[in-house]
Amino acid sequence: SDEFQFTQHSHRRYNPLTKSWVLCSPHRTQRPWQGAQESANAPALPEYDPKCYLCPGNTRANGETNPAYKTTYAFPNDFPAVKADQPEFKEDEESAKGLLRVTGVRGQCHVICFSPAHNLTIAEMSEQDILPVVKQWIKCYEDMAKVDYINHVQIFENKGSAMGCSNPHPHGQMWCTEDVPEEPAKEIKAMAEYRQQNNACLLCDYAKLETTTQGKPRVVCENDSFACVVPFWAVWPFETMVVSKRHVTSVSKLDDVQQKDLANILRRIACRYDNLFQCSFPYSMGIHQAPVDGQDHNGDTHLHIHFYPPLLRSATVKKFLVGFEMMGEPQRDLTPEQAAERLRSCSEVHYKKQQK
Amino acid sequence: SDEFQFTQHSHRRYNPLTKSWVLCSPHRTQRPWQGAQESANAPALPEYDPKCYLCPGNTRANGETNPAYKTTYAFPNDFPAVKADQPEFKEDEESAKGLLRVTGVRGQCHVICFSPAHNLTIAEMSEQDILPVVKQWIKCYEDMAKVDYINHVQIFENKGSAMGCSNPHPHGQMWCTEDVPEEPAKEIKAMAEYRQQNNACLLCDYAKLETTTQGKPRVVCENDSFACVVPFWAVWPFETMVVSKRHVTSVSKLDDVQQKDLANILRRIACRYDNLFQCSFPYSMGIHQAPVDGQDHNGDTHLHIHFYPPLLRSATVKKFLVGFEMMGEPQRDLTPEQAAERLRSCSEVHYKKQQK
Ligand SMILES: O=P(O)(O)O[C@H]1O[C@H](CO)[C@@H](O)[C@H](O)[C@H]1O
Ligand SMILES: O=P(O)(O)O[C@H]1O[C@H](CO)[C@@H](O)[C@H](O)[C@H]1O
Repeated sequence: SDEFQFTQHSHRRYNPLTKSWVLCSPHRTQRPWQGAQESANAPALPEYDPKCYLCPGNTRANGETNPAYKTTYAFPNDFPAVKADQPEFKEDEESAKGLLRVTGVRGQCHVICFSPAHNLTIAEMSEQDILPVVKQWIKCYEDMAKVDYINHVQIFENKGSAMGCSNPHPHGQMWCTEDVPEEPAKEIKAMAEYRQQNNACLLCDYAKLETTTQGKPRVVCENDSFACVVPFWAVWPFETMVVSKRHVTSVSKLDDVQQKDLANILRRIACRYDNLFQCSFPYSMGIHQAPVDGQDHNGDTHLHIHFYPPLLRSATVKKFLVGFEMMGEPQRDLTPEQAAERLRSCSEVHYKKQQK
Repeated sequence: SDEFQFTQHSHRRYNPLTKSWVLCSPHRTQRPWQGAQESANAPALPEYDPKCYLCPGNTRANGETNPAYKTTYAFPNDFPAVKADQPEFKEDEESAKGLLRVTGVRGQCHVICFSPAHNLTIAEMSEQDILPVVKQWIKCYEDMAKVDYINHVQIFENKGSAMGCSNPHPHGQMWCTEDVPEEPAKEIKAMAEYRQQNNACLLCDYAKLETTTQGKPRVVCENDSFACVVPFWAVWPFETMVVSKRHVTSVSKLDDVQQKDLANILRRIACRYDNLFQCSFPYSMGIHQAPVDGQDHNGDTHLHIHFYPPLLRSATVKKFLVGFEMMGEPQRDLTPEQAAERLRSCSEVHYKKQQK
């Protein structure tokens, strides 16, 4: 046909959260792949690994011993990227104006174990067991909000060795800094501008748009409180965003039902991911929410969670964001609607349990 | 000591080209690495591979035969991300205002072979053999400048399977688009603002600053026309930028001496990279220069080349920009000055030739 079709023709989509463009080249999925492959699934893991520094009761590199925790466990990172104590950085007025700008950064880094079981991930945990993770995030966020020099809390998880994760024990991290990092800062700016122009919240509007559009082409799954969508502007092949349907600025504002609904949607998307290529699906996941800088962020933040998974074609073939992506702009192959359809067709029962 | 030291304490550095911050955590180099490792050096390659689709005289997937080229060879990519012919995209006025913004993108993609030899890279080629690559880039850039619907030419190279490169035959690519992609667009905007505020070119000033600072702490190597520096705001552990010392907007404006000097500096930095960990050092490389949109870019562009290499500690351990880097902001371990020192201490004679 002579009509322009998103599934056939190259186009650029706009990300209103970061105010940037993504190139979409859907016909590129047809090209053969001769490049690097990830290693296939690792052998099955034991429920307890005596050499794992995150398992209950084990001793860490710094000599401390983990408690015999039953649900979750949070502790300060033994190799933190930012620290509470360091000499004050005195900015030199000249450099502040010039080409060599720099500031000191204080902060704290924490590790958050999701489960005592070494061989589980969110994808295989029950909603009942994920709820304590949500509650732990809330506690950590609130604790950090009380620390004077901390203005932003970045909660994230790197899952799988393809995402630089060095230990399969289910865990995430929390890096808390004096400054609001680039990505949330960009989003806050864009959301404030959107609010000014539309007298509405960008993500309230977007969640509504996606969940009310005929056929919901980008929705993967939803419950009363949250929708999981492949954003219209997704970069990673199977990128998703879990967004609160109601206007909530942080995990700290979630009521009991919303907390349970968050555990529910996290399990469901993680399980669909594992089922997509029948493997432990790698990703980086991160929570974007209000900074803890003492300012009112009701107008410019809205709780949402990004999942950035690298796999493209199979358990072993990932998308490389290199070359053009680094020098020009992000480029994706399949359309977000195609990705959502693939994820919608996956079961919410984990493949390992199906085989039994 | 109680003094703030860049080699000891966490800090943020500002990238004036993209107007964004990078977190630097120098003490993190001390942490043990237990994560994924790249595979070590591949076995030696033949000078000619009958199965390679880039070797002279071989037939490609689409049935075309490569000529018996002696220096470089450029041809249209058989699996282009953007195409010349596609139906016109008619923007819907509603969507243009809303959250689902999209435009069509026409363009061309080309492959540029650097050498007929299957087993060479820039690092092992002679300056005499790299000069035709520079001349090929100039020709390609100028050819594309004549194409009506093309407004930007992105020349880049993905080297090594760690950077998604599926064929070791030395080659780069050129993706030419209707739009100016995100990264160059950000740089052009920042350079235009700098020009307005300082009545000077940002990269002219920066090249001068780096090459005249006492001890030149971030300069790796230089010649009359170019400096190779680890930028003050580098993200990747051994990221470098090759910047023209004189104000030149594109490869098309290079005189004979500058062309030779570009071949010279490219060989030298690529060779130092290979020598750093005694391996074929992976990277993405890309040229940023004036768009070909018919506008005068003398004020807001300045020819420079970015090298983004992923390796951190050895030939097999790379830096993962995941988790915090994706959700928060880029984070690096060693300081740019430490990286420059490491690269300065590498020879400009390739390690394979040293062993002989
Ligand atoms: O075109 P190639 O070399 O097959 O593909 C490689 O480079 C492209 C441009 O940087 C990327 O989009 C691909 O993800 C990467 O694998
Ligand atoms: O802290 P980890 O898990 O050892 O390290 C991993 O996550 C960090 C935060 O995303 C990254 O900076 C590292 O590159 C990555 O390997």
